[in-house]
Amino acid sequence: AGRRPTPHNHHNSLEEDMSAHPFDEAIHLEPDAERAGMLWHGATHPAYWNMVGPFGGLTAAVVLQAVRGHPERIGTPISLTLTYAAPIVEGPYEVHTECVAATRSTQHWSIRCVQQGKVVVNAIALFAQRRDTWNSAEMRMPQVPAAADVAPIDTSVARVAWLRRYEVRPVQGGIDVVQKAQAHEQSITRQWVRDEPPRPLDYPALASICDVFFPRI
Amino acid sequence: AGRRPTPHNHHNSLEEDMSAHPFDEAIHLEPDAERAGMLWHGATHPAYWNMVGPFGGLTAAVVLQAVRGHPERIGTPISLTLTYAAPIVEGPYEVHTECVAATRSTQHWSIRCVQQGKVVVNAIALFAQRRDTWNSAEMRMPQVPAAADVAPIDTSVARVAWLRRYEVRPVQGGIDVVQKAQAHEQSITRQWVRDEPPRPLDYPALASICDVFFPRI
Repeated sequence: AGRRPTPHNHHNSLEEDMSAHPFDEAIHLEPDAERAGMLWHGATHPAYWNMVGPFGGLTAAVVLQAVRGHPERIGTPISLTLTYAAPIVEGPYEVHTECVAATRSTQHWSIRCVQQGKVVVNAIALFAQRRDTWNSAEMRMPQVPAAADVAPIDTSVARVAWLRRYEVRPVQGGIDVVQKAQAHEQSITRQWVRDEPPRPLDYPALASICDVFFPRI
Repeated sequence: AGRRPTPHNHHNSLEEDMSAHPFDEAIHLEPDAERAGMLWHGATHPAYWNMVGPFGGLTAAVVLQAVRGHPERIGTPISLTLTYAAPIVEGPYEVHTECVAATRSTQHWSIRCVQQGKVVVNAIALFAQRRDTWNSAEMRMPQVPAAADVAPIDTSVARVAWLRRYEVRPVQGGIDVVQKAQAHEQSITRQWVRDEPPRPLDYPALASICDVFFPRI
């Protein structure tokens, strides 16, 4: 019943219009004609393709983007939790959003991605208006070399598309350790990472980046 | 439309029947007569009352219990995420469960607690059949004194009921630090904790215990 995003050639569109970042293309959602805000139409994007489906971080960003686009959404994300329920295949999908509870300053959302009639992602999110108040951040930035002093991984030859969408400068652990198949006492990964090409860090971009860490064995 | 749990006097029932642990009473749910498995009826319990509502951990346990009771549920909990949307007041509530996606070995659940027509908890859970396989647990048990060598907090005089439902033996941080209003560099809390009176540790009990840690300022 809704409008679907038009298929596009990612590489051509990048060359023609640098303002269209592949990330923004990939998380783009069209409101359903009849259920605008509650139902969105999107599609997988080749620029964030993983081995057999879209990069999981991108899917998390799409979920967040669907809530952000709701006309009654207030505030910014406080928490986002997803469980990936089934493989996402190449092609269109729908995102269903529902604000199940709200106060004047908070909103509790349920979100589901559906493809070919099947729920592929089950998610909840909490949005709230953040107010200026006292705070105490216990977590400290770790002492690491400046990003400029760390060599980035060469992802230009990566066979997996989404790897080329991030510039990663590994400080400790990470994909280089995985590649070398070294055994390690612990699984801490420290790396500088940004979108490639560069893009301002917003909530969807942050949600996506949370998934760039490689599983360790 | 469903049967509600009968109100009961907690102290009397304990004296009369030690097999009825207050925790099991408190998480007890009655299936709805018409929508059994998908809709449950429960009620707040005085034994787990907090200052102005039920202990949050108990509510998490109720959410898990509702999924566990579904006739088509398979496996055990892998993850449970809740956002508390509104205060829960003394009295009955409903728990709605929906299995939104499943494979032969996994189930993705959405759960909502509703009281007086309002969603008070929004939750998702992943259940799966755990199979014997290789594993590597990086987290190690911290080196702490044996529980028997640590004095428990005297909660017998606690004005907040749920505190009397846990035996807590603080090793580092915790409620004693909160009470002393000491400033600390970090907020690590290490304590031995068990249900009071003792009760086998199952998934609902574990979900509840996850909330016994006191906020630090």
